[in-house]
Amino acid sequence: MQQKAPTSRIDDTLLSQFRAIVGPAHAVVDPDQQMPYLREWRDTYFGVSPLVVRPGSVDEVSQVLALANANRLPVVPQAGNTGLVGGQIPSDANTEIVLSVERLNAVRAVDPAGGTLTVEAGMTLADCQTAADDVDRLFPLSLPSEGSCRIGGNIATNAGGVGVLAYGNARQLVMGLEVVLPDGRVLNDLNTLKKNNTGYDLKNLFIGSEGTLGVITAAVLRLFPKPAEKATAFVAIPRLDSAIDLLGKAQQLAGSNLTAFEFIPRIVLEFVTRHVSGARDPLAEIYPWYALIEISGPKPDGQAEQTMQTLLETAAEAGLILDGVVAGSIAQSRDLWKLREGISEAQKPEGRNIKHDVSVPIAAIPDFVSKVNAAVLNICPGARPLALGHFGDGNVHYNVVQPIDMDPKQFGALGPNISAAVYDVVAQFGGAISAEHGIGQMKTDVLAQTKDPVAFDLMRSIKMLLDPNGIMNPGKVLNNL
Amino acid sequence: MQQKAPTSRIDDTLLSQFRAIVGPAHAVVDPDQQMPYLREWRDTYFGVSPLVVRPGSVDEVSQVLALANANRLPVVPQAGNTGLVGGQIPSDANTEIVLSVERLNAVRAVDPAGGTLTVEAGMTLADCQTAADDVDRLFPLSLPSEGSCRIGGNIATNAGGVGVLAYGNARQLVMGLEVVLPDGRVLNDLNTLKKNNTGYDLKNLFIGSEGTLGVITAAVLRLFPKPAEKATAFVAIPRLDSAIDLLGKAQQLAGSNLTAFEFIPRIVLEFVTRHVSGARDPLAEIYPWYALIEISGPKPDGQAEQTMQTLLETAAEAGLILDGVVAGSIAQSRDLWKLREGISEAQKPEGRNIKHDVSVPIAAIPDFVSKVNAAVLNICPGARPLALGHFGDGNVHYNVVQPIDMDPKQFGALGPNISAAVYDVVAQFGGAISAEHGIGQMKTDVLAQTKDPVAFDLMRSIKMLLDPNGIMNPGKVLNNL
Repeated sequence: MQQKAPTSRIDDTLLSQFRAIVGPAHAVVDPDQQMPYLREWRDTYFGVSPLVVRPGSVDEVSQVLALANANRLPVVPQAGNTGLVGGQIPSDANTEIVLSVERLNAVRAVDPAGGTLTVEAGMTLADCQTAADDVDRLFPLSLPSEGSCRIGGNIATNAGGVGVLAYGNARQLVMGLEVVLPDGRVLNDLNTLKKNNTGYDLKNLFIGSEGTLGVITAAVLRLFPKPAEKATAFVAIPRLDSAIDLLGKAQQLAGSNLTAFEFIPRIVLEFVTRHVSGARDPLAEIYPWYALIEISGPKPDGQAEQTMQTLLETAAEAGLILDGVVAGSIAQSRDLWKLREGISEAQKPEGRNIKHDVSVPIAAIPDFVSKVNAAVLNICPGARPLALGHFGDGNVHYNVVQPIDMDPKQFGALGPNISAAVYDVVAQFGGAISAEHGIGQMKTDVLAQTKDPVAFDLMRSIKMLLDPNGIMNPGKVLNNL
Repeated sequence: MQQKAPTSRIDDTLLSQFRAIVGPAHAVVDPDQQMPYLREWRDTYFGVSPLVVRPGSVDEVSQVLALANANRLPVVPQAGNTGLVGGQIPSDANTEIVLSVERLNAVRAVDPAGGTLTVEAGMTLADCQTAADDVDRLFPLSLPSEGSCRIGGNIATNAGGVGVLAYGNARQLVMGLEVVLPDGRVLNDLNTLKKNNTGYDLKNLFIGSEGTLGVITAAVLRLFPKPAEKATAFVAIPRLDSAIDLLGKAQQLAGSNLTAFEFIPRIVLEFVTRHVSGARDPLAEIYPWYALIEISGPKPDGQAEQTMQTLLETAAEAGLILDGVVAGSIAQSRDLWKLREGISEAQKPEGRNIKHDVSVPIAAIPDFVSKVNAAVLNICPGARPLALGHFGDGNVHYNVVQPIDMDPKQFGALGPNISAAVYDVVAQFGGAISAEHGIGQMKTDVLAQTKDPVAFDLMRSIKMLLDPNGIMNPGKVLNNL
């Protein structure tokens, strides 16, 4: 099962062939011009590349891949360059070209009655949302980076975000794909049909494969009716296990109108009120846990707020919440959301932070958190572990902030041990080492260690089948071909 | 790309090896005992087989496949034997063994908080629904055959049904799978996590592959909160295009609480009231089109009925409906549903009937129906075409009933021409030749003719990768390996 290592580097002849395909302005060799494609926005990953190509059409993507494949030249596909695990960044060996899809940015078709929007891979997520809004529909994928991330990358990484609870992640929001295969052939699977049982499902192979099997050039997105109203509440919770019961009650009462359920521990609320300008604790007393809850309604008839009131009353009677506040205006709702959205910013001033994006079965979250906390504190007494996020999806953002007086470098050296302990507890609960960020180059080793061996072997076989020369995003997802 | 034809037949040595794996009682060679596995319930497909094996555990399935693979012996997996396209029936060559999963029928785990139910492939769909109901949850897959079809078959064929509009088809309801691969290896992808971005999506390769890539032995099903109330209405519609507008309005008002939207043309309502005992037209006058609409609510607070009233009032004002009735009791609701559920029965007395299960973009349904009607009547003047069904999913059951005075045989001879014309118009609208029934042995030729050539080639490559000896359900889905 050994895959041939790519053998050729780019020379002047090959470079001129790429230039002829995409035009000289879009075959970028100047290091300054290349910089935005080689650095990741948090400066965590850097790459070096002989060439960044920006094809302007699917046909050009096809020609670029065919040429690269014929020359065994590795290709790193890139969309908005906002990924968090380094999947979109080439290695530093100066052997991999970057293929940016940013110039493929047309809306190809929109069908509000059928609930579909067909877009090219380079459209930003925000532009996709706007294109849906223009025909009075909702495209519910929503991420902090939506102004700069591009839909091709969202699909290639099966992006998650705040809307997953009610609408699913990118996989659930894609009905069809156009993909250029590593040999340059164009797979047309731009299905717009909700029901289509004509053979194997191919699109899901490419969704979440992080550019290792081909380049997604266009997609059919699923649109939804727009909610007409929203009710937002911030509640205090006595214990983590009551939080899970509260989630169950909210799902029972609101069904699919429960559009957000985010957990925040006390320590994180303290970080936010301490460091984020304008953020304040909306409750008078101190509580161990909080949840931010949003219920939507299809009609502007006050039902969303009524359901929220019913939820809070019955939950209070059952002892599941200790206190709470419902936003009475859009401004108040924005203030409550600020407590969730400020979390990333608020952790920085507290020192070095080792982050994990994992998931476990929802019912297991309380046990998981106590067990992983114990394991982490055993390695680093005084460390401040935080569990927060989209618990309604089983997704725990588990971050470990350094002890207050520790040297950040000394704490950083414990990082690999701490992460190994976290992933070990994740495995004990049948969890996933990546809930929404993917594998990229960051988690290839832990994937190889934790994946079911038959599943891992099947992944490798599929990679060899589709990309026998190993040119597509080498070293990402699968580390040992 | 030629696949080796299976070469060996079963001999006494091999038979005794299979007996040793599953036990003599479950290695069925007696023709009478075999009969239920070789005839399809409508008597459309018949097969002949040297052996029906009924393994009692995943390990036994694994041993059966390993033995069959080593001997190049074809295997036809079978669950409830209710499929409509012959996918579960062996050929008449007496060379293919049948592997029934009916004895794998345990509930392995249930997690109401996480919304998952892990079941073995041989459980009937009705038993899966009951297991969900037992923990106060809904498993929304629903088919007329739910008492006898088995979940492994539902998943292998990506079953649809009445619940698709709100909850999706089988693919959307499966979170993880256990699959025995053709060589006997067991793929453990029994994911229970809503968010899991750890490598390629493997389960979707097997869902809808109709037993041609491996045997599904267990699955993690997605559970939902149970609706607390339902409102049902039967409305009259002036034209097919207003029906599509009405659907849009219903989705706008009810969002994901719109749980059914079924279309019925006048001629079909006449068939039903003529032939189904107790069925009667609930409206006083005659109209060209009807829709059966169901709106659900998560709470028993009358909102579902209120939303239905709002929908009917605004639709009447806009001229989208001409008349309508809302069920005032469960008995009345059952009577309205009887008009939909009696359709299959009511078509039989009208003579020979050529059926098609297709889908097109929802907005294109009116144009599709006029164009396909014209094409059919051109081939057979006097034929009575019917378009009906789950239009909310773009799914049109397009059936052509013979002219009243025609000889059924003479009409039957026109079948291939009529179907070719239907699929031709489907292709013109970018539709699918199978919406929910699959390909089986019935539609392999038309699939080969209509599928995107790159997609078809990729399907063949994947089949060769996973099943190099071609033992899994040969001649199904792909006809020309």
